[in-house]
Amino acid sequence: NALKIAVIAGDGIGKEVMPEGLRVLRAAAERFGLDITFDEFPFSSWDYYEQHGRMLPVDWKDQIGGHDAIYFGAVGWPEKIADHVSLWGSLLLFRREFDQYVNLRPVRLMPGVPSPLAGRKPGDIDFYVVRENTEGEYSSIGGRMFEGTEREVVVQETVMSRVGVDRILRFAFELARRTPKKHLTSATKSNGIAITMPYWDERVEAMAKHYPDVKWDKYHIDILTAHFVLNPQRFNVVVASNLFGDILSDLGPACTGTIGIAPSGNINPAGDFPSLFEPVHGSAPDIAGQGIANPVGQIWAGAMMLDHLGHAQAAAAIVRAIEEVLAQKPLRTRDLGGLADTETCGAAIADAVARS
Amino acid sequence: NALKIAVIAGDGIGKEVMPEGLRVLRAAAERFGLDITFDEFPFSSWDYYEQHGRMLPVDWKDQIGGHDAIYFGAVGWPEKIADHVSLWGSLLLFRREFDQYVNLRPVRLMPGVPSPLAGRKPGDIDFYVVRENTEGEYSSIGGRMFEGTEREVVVQETVMSRVGVDRILRFAFELARRTPKKHLTSATKSNGIAITMPYWDERVEAMAKHYPDVKWDKYHIDILTAHFVLNPQRFNVVVASNLFGDILSDLGPACTGTIGIAPSGNINPAGDFPSLFEPVHGSAPDIAGQGIANPVGQIWAGAMMLDHLGHAQAAAAIVRAIEEVLAQKPLRTRDLGGLADTETCGAAIADAVARS
Ligand SMILES: CC(C)[C@H](C(=O)O)[C@@H](O)C(=O)O
Ligand SMILES: CC(C)[C@H](C(=O)O)[C@@H](O)C(=O)O
Repeated sequence: NALKIAVIAGDGIGKEVMPEGLRVLRAAAERFGLDITFDEFPFSSWDYYEQHGRMLPVDWKDQIGGHDAIYFGAVGWPEKIADHVSLWGSLLLFRREFDQYVNLRPVRLMPGVPSPLAGRKPGDIDFYVVRENTEGEYSSIGGRMFEGTEREVVVQETVMSRVGVDRILRFAFELARRTPKKHLTSATKSNGIAITMPYWDERVEAMAKHYPDVKWDKYHIDILTAHFVLNPQRFNVVVASNLFGDILSDLGPACTGTIGIAPSGNINPAGDFPSLFEPVHGSAPDIAGQGIANPVGQIWAGAMMLDHLGHAQAAAAIVRAIEEVLAQKPLRTRDLGGLADTETCGAAIADAVARS
Repeated sequence: NALKIAVIAGDGIGKEVMPEGLRVLRAAAERFGLDITFDEFPFSSWDYYEQHGRMLPVDWKDQIGGHDAIYFGAVGWPEKIADHVSLWGSLLLFRREFDQYVNLRPVRLMPGVPSPLAGRKPGDIDFYVVRENTEGEYSSIGGRMFEGTEREVVVQETVMSRVGVDRILRFAFELARRTPKKHLTSATKSNGIAITMPYWDERVEAMAKHYPDVKWDKYHIDILTAHFVLNPQRFNVVVASNLFGDILSDLGPACTGTIGIAPSGNINPAGDFPSLFEPVHGSAPDIAGQGIANPVGQIWAGAMMLDHLGHAQAAAAIVRAIEEVLAQKPLRTRDLGGLADTETCGAAIADAVARS
């Protein structure tokens, strides 16, 4: 059972962290006897856009739709290309066209990475954000009227469907059921966003009936962000709409010291299209080209990918290697108070996997 | 120049912190020779609703619309009354009907209140959140279709008007101009919320041209919440849409140790209707009736009210009294590791004002 992975490095530091991700995956393949082929694609990047006038080739679905998964770096370069072209023309398009309706983001305080929260130790912060990834606040419906005048008005729809809400809730409750704590938190704002969010709450309540073994609660998004900072130990599985999940999955990793190490799985649970694994961080044009980017988010995303593809043992070995390397100052990158450049850190993790 | 204040204590701990707010305002009036009349109103509460079957009397606008300001406690009791009745039938209605389009929320780390952020001292966190308070994501437009079926779909509009966006930005830039740092941050999410938020960005850029002396930057809301935790010293005036401002003004105070002390001004800058001052915290039914609620948010809101009404000296004296009392463990409430109950804390602040 050979695996075929589509590799898209993208823009900025995506091009620098991807080689480290691949290095570690190759080490894991070697160590655990996995047969993995990596097909690299140049599209979904500013370079490709400059040459071809578009983010993707016409037949992009044929080119990558048959792979077992997509290993993705980062895309976007606001100074060169508008976000609605680069992001909506690639990453956000993949999420939707490949129906990757789950965005799964582990939030874990790692050894060697100091938390900005006073007194928090590894073990204190360890949960998942489960983000709806295809609908909600990220709609493409809306527009402007009376443009350029004093009465100009701009509207945009939030769209929640029963199918879309129920399937993400089901995924989150199933995940919660498999965790030792069996606890789920729903992010809402039904007191202020008074049409869509009460619907979300209703569906959570209905879904919870099918999971009597899962304890659950809900918080409005405003106070929920406060609890992330004040009581992060309270969370286990946090399920949220597209926008709320986006916010919580940057805030959560920030509470663990950096978003530079956080991974993200854009998952199509049905498996009719490939899932996509990427770091949570973006292309970071400001530090691109210096070889200093932290490769851990990319590498951890590789572990999530292997786990998703049924290779739990190899995935766990990568996560352990990450923990081992992060604990050592000479091997951490500078954003974490370490001394290493991107390559040194990546090579150290690959080495730890090989020795595992 | 006598001042007439409409007082609405509301629900839950609103009823417990309001007397302390009034105690301190009376002490300030005495100390600074202000002539203030307080008219207390029973509506906008569960009790009133239980008796009258509505949140407000028919002539509520006549009853409170002529006052110089509204001093508000907290409203809402989800177990007894639905939020869309209690909140949209009072607090959110006041904001909109009295065109209180600015929600101004200071975020400041106070002496004696430990920050959950490691190593942060008073002075490190000191900024304003300026929240749009009447439109945006808090619309009342939308609805459901195919109700109760598998194809059920729920939509809600976000609505931004040129008038609505420009006036909140103008307020924020004017405020930034008056601060020593002359710096403004705009909260956006134009990469994901691709119709309304790019419009917000455009208006920020246009407004900034009128304020060449104000330095400004923008962050997407996801990474902005991360920076609140990682780099709070970076912020001075943060301007945000209704929803984003709601989130940031709970997260900001959480970074200063508690939302229990944070005040909020719902301001109508034109002055054609009264402005409303309230604590950021809600009615907290879980701790109501025990006399342990922290009254500082309510008291600080009173200081903001006096400042708004032109009594800067009295306002400053209250803030100094708050700082003095918070620094003393026996006078702080228990949520801040102190020993005091609501009344002891309030009386201590009133006493410090009288001695000032
Ligand atoms: C109670 C709720 C509707 C309100 C809001 O979201 O505006 C509150 O959170 C606030 O910040 O004043
Ligand atoms: C780049 C942006 C559109 C994207 C999102 O908001 O989904 C990113 O922040 C993420 O979290 O993957």
